[in-house]
Parts: sequence; C-alpha cells; structure tokens
Amino acid sequence: MWKPDRQSAQPLYQQIADNIERRISYGEFPPGSLLPSERKLAEKLGVNRSTVILAYAELRALGIIESRTGSGTRVSKYKWEATPKHTPNWHRYVEGGSFLPNVPFLRRIREVLQKEETMIDFASGELAANLCPVEEINHLMNVKHYTDYLGYDNPQGCAPLRETLVTYLRKYRGIQTTASSILITSGSQQSLYLITQCLLAPGDAVAIEDPSYCYSLPMFQSAGLRLFRLPVDYKGVRPDDIRSLYKKHRIKMVFLNPNFQNPTGTLLDNERRIELLNVVSELGLPIVEDDPFSLTSYNGIPPAPLKSVDSIGSIIYIGSLSKIAASGLRVGWMVAPHSVVERLADARQQMDFGLSIVPQKVAAQFLKSPYIDPHLDRLRMHLLYKRDLLIEALQKELPDLVSFKAPAGGLHLWCKIIPKVNDNKLFEEAIRRGVIFAPGSVYGSDSGYVRFTYARSRADEIAPGIAKFAAALRCILS
Amino acid sequence: MWKPDRQSAQPLYQQIADNIERRISYGEFPPGSLLPSERKLAEKLGVNRSTVILAYAELRALGIIESRTGSGTRVSKYKWEATPKHTPNWHRYVEGGSFLPNVPFLRRIREVLQKEETMIDFASGELAANLCPVEEINHLMNVKHYTDYLGYDNPQGCAPLRETLVTYLRKYRGIQTTASSILITSGSQQSLYLITQCLLAPGDAVAIEDPSYCYSLPMFQSAGLRLFRLPVDYKGVRPDDIRSLYKKHRIKMVFLNPNFQNPTGTLLDNERRIELLNVVSELGLPIVEDDPFSLTSYNGIPPAPLKSVDSIGSIIYIGSLSKIAASGLRVGWMVAPHSVVERLADARQQMDFGLSIVPQKVAAQFLKSPYIDPHLDRLRMHLLYKRDLLIEALQKELPDLVSFKAPAGGLHLWCKIIPKVNDNKLFEEAIRRGVIFAPGSVYGSDSGYVRFTYARSRADEIAPGIAKFAAALRCILS
Repeated sequence: MWKPDRQSAQPLYQQIADNIERRISYGEFPPGSLLPSERKLAEKLGVNRSTVILAYAELRALGIIESRTGSGTRVSKYKWEATPKHTPNWHRYVEGGSFLPNVPFLRRIREVLQKEETMIDFASGELAANLCPVEEINHLMNVKHYTDYLGYDNPQGCAPLRETLVTYLRKYRGIQTTASSILITSGSQQSLYLITQCLLAPGDAVAIEDPSYCYSLPMFQSAGLRLFRLPVDYKGVRPDDIRSLYKKHRIKMVFLNPNFQNPTGTLLDNERRIELLNVVSELGLPIVEDDPFSLTSYNGIPPAPLKSVDSIGSIIYIGSLSKIAASGLRVGWMVAPHSVVERLADARQQMDFGLSIVPQKVAAQFLKSPYIDPHLDRLRMHLLYKRDLLIEALQKELPDLVSFKAPAGGLHLWCKIIPKVNDNKLFEEAIRRGVIFAPGSVYGSDSGYVRFTYARSRADEIAPGIAKFAAALRCILS
Repeated sequence: MWKPDRQSAQPLYQQIADNIERRISYGEFPPGSLLPSERKLAEKLGVNRSTVILAYAELRALGIIESRTGSGTRVSKYKWEATPKHTPNWHRYVEGGSFLPNVPFLRRIREVLQKEETMIDFASGELAANLCPVEEINHLMNVKHYTDYLGYDNPQGCAPLRETLVTYLRKYRGIQTTASSILITSGSQQSLYLITQCLLAPGDAVAIEDPSYCYSLPMFQSAGLRLFRLPVDYKGVRPDDIRSLYKKHRIKMVFLNPNFQNPTGTLLDNERRIELLNVVSELGLPIVEDDPFSLTSYNGIPPAPLKSVDSIGSIIYIGSLSKIAASGLRVGWMVAPHSVVERLADARQQMDFGLSIVPQKVAAQFLKSPYIDPHLDRLRMHLLYKRDLLIEALQKELPDLVSFKAPAGGLHLWCKIIPKVNDNKLFEEAIRRGVIFAPGSVYGSDSGYVRFTYARSRADEIAPGIAKFAAALRCILS
C-alpha cells in the first residue's frame, strides 16, 4: 500500500493530496464517490488527522473534492465532468445484487486483521504459517516438472490428482471410491457453494448443526434456503431431531461436520452415527459430510467419516487440504454419485471455467510424497501443544468465568462465558486491547460464547492473548 | 480410466462385471441409478458390444442390476438395500437446482473431444499446447521460491500480482490504475460471473453484442437477466443502438468485447468508440469491457482498450492470461472502482474463499520476466501463420460456399456458409468425418455461421481439417 515518504522534501499533506488526485484520475474513486473519512485515512497512512484535513482542504480548494456536513467527502462531479457526463451510479449497482454480503462480524475481523499487524489472532480458522508444509511444497515445486499441458482441464479436476485421492481416501479415511466420483474443488467453501446453488432451489428446507460454521456463510441465505437447527450436545447432533425436522418441514438435505465439529470441537457419538445413518436411509435424505479436521486427531487415530460406512450412497463427502496442510493452495474435493459430480462440474465450468492446474499438480505431488506422514505428526503435536497452552491460560486467567470442554482434534476451542455479557462490547474491547476472536453468534449460537482458534497465532502469543482477553472481559463486566 | 486387461486370464466380460460391481459398491452408481447403455460402455472400454451385454447379463443374474425395456439398465434397489433403505433420489436433486446446465452444443463438443482423441479441434477457444509458454513457466517454477506464505490471502488477490499488473496494464494496455482497483479472478468467466451475480438482480435488462460468446454462457440466464442485442457489423456495435435499448428497456449494463470480438473478430471502429463513450456517459451506463485478445494483434500494435480513455469511470475492464499465455493457469483480472472491487471480492470469498496463491505468484513472475515479449512475438507469428493456413484451405476447398473477413487478431475466424444449411446436420456430419467446430447459433447468431478457432489445432491439421469440413458440407448439401 502507498504511504507518504517522510524523507521527501515535499510536505506530507501535499504528497497525500497528489496521491488522492492520482487515484481519482485512475478511476479508483469515480466522480461522486465517497472518500475515506479523515480519521480512517490518517490511521491507514500512519499520519496525524490534521495532515489529512490539510490534504483534503487542498483538494477542495482545487475543486477536486467536496465535503458536506453529515455526508462525508466526495469526489466532485463538476471538476471531473466538464461536459455534463454521468458516471454510473456504482453505489446502486454495489447494493443492487441479489448475493448477500458477508456477516458483519467477519467483515470487521478481516478489516481489523488487515490494519493491525500486531493483533493476536484467535479468529482466523486456519493454521499458522509454521504449521503449513511450506518448505516441502516449495521443494516439490522446484524439483518436479509441471510441463506437459497448461490448457483447459477436465471439468472434474485434473486426473492425476483424482487418482491420487482415490488412494489417499482409502488409506487415510477408509473411503472406497473411484476417480470418476471425485470432483476437485478449491476447498469446502466451493463444495458447499456448488451444492447449495445447484442441488437445491430457493425455498428448500435444510438442516444445519446449531451452532455451526454454516451460519457464518451467507451463501445459504443467498440461495434462498430455509435453515432448521439441529442442536449439538456433547455427543453431537441427535438423530431423532432429523426425523422430526423432516416430518415438520420436509428438509431436503442435512449438513454435518461429525468429526471435531466447527465451532464446538464435538465428535459425533458412535451409537448416534449408526442411528443417524438408519434415519436418513429410512427417509431417503442426503447428508453433506464436511470432514476437514479428522487428520488432526491428537491421539493420532483419526475418527472414521460417516462416508466410510455409507453403504447406500446417502452421503456427499467433502474434504480439503486447507486445515491439514495449507489453506492458500485452495485444493479440496468432493466424493458423490457420478451424476451429482457431473452436474456440479458442469455448473462450475460456467462460474469460473474450472481450477488452475498448478495447485492441483502440487497437491497431487504432496499427497503422494513421503512428506505427508511426518507433516501430519508434527501438525498434531503442535496443535495439541497450543491447545494446552490455551487451556492453561484460560484456567489461570479466568478460572470462574469460563467453561469449556477440551477438544480432541481440530483447530478451535468453544468457550462459554459464564456471566451474562454483551458480545459486541466484549469483541470491541478485546480488539482495543490487541486480541481478536470469533463471537459465538457468528455460528448461530446464543450470546456469551466465543470460538478461540489456537492454530493460527504463534505459541508465544497464546498466554498474552488470553491475558488481554481476560482484561477485556473483566473490564466490561465491571 | 479403467480398461479391461486383455492379457489377463480372466475373461473380458468378467473383468467388466467385477469393475461395475465395485463401482456400485463404492457409491459411484447408487441403487436405482442408471448405468451407461451397452453401446456407450462398449465404446468407452474399447470392447465389442456383445462383451458388455454378457457382463450386464452376469450382473443381472446376481440381482445386482435390473434392465427394463425402454428405461435402460439400473442398479437394483433390492440387492443393495437388504433392509428397506432409501438412497436419496439424486436425480431429483441434480435436476432441481436453479443454476442452468451448459448449452447443449458445448456439452456435446466437450463429450466428443473427451472421447475422440484424433478429432481435429476447431471448436475449443484456446491456444495449442505449443503456443503456451510452458517451458518458461516451468523454469520460473523451478528457480523461484514461493515460500513465504500459504495461508488465506487478501480477498482481492495477492498483492505482488496486483502490483505487477499496475505496471503491465500501463505498459501494454495504456490503463492507469492502482493495486486497490484490481481484483484478481480465475479468468474472464469468473469476472463475468461475479458481475452478473453481484451487481445485477433478476429481471434487470442488459445489452450484449450479437453475435457474442456471452450467449454461450447460461450464467446470464441463470442470473435471471433480460438480454437485448446489439448487432455487430464490420465496424462493431452501433452506439445509437445502445441509446435506443436504454430508452426502450432501461438496460442497466452493456457487455462489449471491442478488440477482435469473439466470435466475429471485429475491431470496433475508432469513431464509434468516441460516440459510444459519449452515449454511455450521457446515460450514466456502465460498460463491461472484455479484452482478452488485444495482444495477439498480428501487426504487432495492440489496439487500445476503451478503458484507456475512460475519463469518468464508466468501464469495468476485464482481462486474463487465458488467450495470450495459458488457460490452465486460470489467472485473470478486473479493473473497476474500488467499491465494486470490494463488493465482488467479498462475494467471491463466500463462493470459494479466493484463489490459490500458487498460480498468482507464477503469473506475477511471468508478467515481470523477460519471457513475456518474445513469447507474445512468437504467439502473434504463429497465430497469423495458422490464420493464413485456414484461409488458404477455405479458399481452396470451398471457394463459392463460404464468405468471411480475415481477422487482424484473436484466435477465431467467423465464417458464413452461403447456401442454406441445417446447423445440426452439418455439425454431426463434420464430427463423423473427424473435425469439430462451434456452430454460430452457440453465439446467438442465425443459422449458417461457423466459428473456426485456428489457435487450438496443430498447423498441419488445418488443411486436412478443412478438407473434412468441406466434405461434410458438400455431403449435407447434396
């Protein structure tokens, strides 16, 4: 990002004014559009607010921008439209689409993390850089050849990766499948997007765990689906609830994350698994099983997916490398009946013409390489270590104010705040003190819950992060 | 793909029966689902139809599959559902979504090309493998490090690529912009998808060139847009038509491909460009300018994009590497006002959580490398050479039956068949003779037009391909 040059002979305000004028002339801010507030711009550029006030005054004097009380500072229409020309009302277009914007808390999290580099991050549901097999992947990229072809690929995803996944899924997940039943996606998010867009229609009812990361995804609402809740207790969802939702609302699909559920960390109980499969096969109901965390199981024994015992083909199984290797690769997969895979592949062709070949080849190399087992062992040890640091810090800092159950795998700890709190106040106070987390309401829960991701921050940040969190909590409770 | 082993002691039909049973038990074909017809499966496996008939008979005898006259062969429900269990009615789900399937001609093209490897391909709108900078990209992948980070990235796309594009767009396209006005996409298709999904609402009217590749994209219909036509003559679209469409239908957006338009190859006339910008600025109408082909300009001087003279910010500009380097990389970009870029980036996060970092870094390296200019020079020479081979062959084989204008850039030649023909008959007869092309109706034109892509096939295939096409045409005319 551009910053003013403090060494330059030109005053800071003048540099800022020049930069804004250039950005306006490049179309970044068309005539009539809103410029950042003085306070925000000052923060972004790391200058005093008075410097920005001066820069804006300069531009106003030149007729380039206009300020009106209460409506902020805008790019002047007259200066930039000598003849009476009209810039499209972009604002109307931006607000007009039918696709919903992201959840406000999540947009705020992204904004805070982009701006404040020292923020301790318990919010981002991903691995720390040092837990990704970065060296291994770079090594594979440097020694392997990716030459043969760089044209459009098979709509289901590149064949060598699908073949590799057949072996991987059998060995690591106990799933028997074939390359033609696999769709490569850019991750679970794209898998869910294709399913909600292409297999369901507006008005359809679906069942979703409560709480669930699905509530953080406006795609369900954008697709016009009616969402019904399956409460998650310490053994996971109750199969009977599925039956009663079916009777009442004719739900058409069930979305589950049975192993180390996001956000609660719950492992679906074995007896319930059997009962659940009986219920859905009785009703002819399809399950979408999201299985991103199983291989992080801290005891080294990954729980089996429902799909491994799905004898009648009720389950669409989705997995990815995001939570066990590297989210930035953007490689995931779906196992489903061939007719489903074919339909979703066709739709995806229309959306983005398929995935890049490069990360697919890299992923295939990685999954076949001897790196995978040592990487997973190391990942498990680190996650367990960080989980314990988090638990220790919570027990030390907030012994009587929080309650939680230690997860046996995954990236998250789900934590109940015992006294009544205002989620928003706690969130903002924590940010003010340099720590950020995901409020439980993002996942559809009642207020007073917090999801702490311990995978993302550095180990040495965990105790200080919880100390800051504790201070924020005590501050808003006092 | 699995094929029976002709060296094995086990008879072919038995191997096939075993394979199908395994695929059924893996869920590729759930109970009740339709199996491939005997003829199709025989073709696919390269065996006699009678072998497949025997394999199916074997499976029928075991109760694994059932055949009923007129409704094909299906996986048995009884055998696979010992207790009365119900597989979801996947067929209903596959048919039920609101997202439209691809254009039938395009699905047929994909199917034919997947099956028949010797087919001469004038249909796929992409470069031949030997025109992609495959060696250069592999070299960059082998010598560069991509280490630093493999986590989730900036929703607008990775910063180094956006910075590189600022320079690239200025140098090669005369476009002044900033990194914060750029959205990295997986190509023009994703750019168009985001625009149609997020900036327009069902029922909105938009103007599209006629003919246009946009008609080959059901996404416009899936988004519920009303499409109005802007006829393309030898100088491109007529600006007055935009005004009258606006008056009649209140069109909200105009989609244009001004340089070497797909499929006609037309270059929008300079006077019309000025008039067009006047019209849209008078009406406050936004233009989406797709500019994939300009750098292929055979005289070495790429025509400027409208965006380079867009003084008031009316234009969303989209470009990509697909037609000038490698479609399989899946790297494209969009230049738009910051508010638009931010909105589309947010929506894309929800669809697929953003793009893989790997191809973005590779693309940034490539665009900055000394490879780019020699690559473009070579590409232009080869395309011009192949265009001339195509024209020569058409003039030799069909002097009185076709008419066309030689394009000065791009990958396609748009060809009118002078006598009246049945598009579908010509298409299927050509396939039967080993050559495939894209019928004009795919692009919304009247019947009797053909788009020949000369970029995809090998140079030595062009004359034989046109000979086959000429034979097919004469055959259906006779």
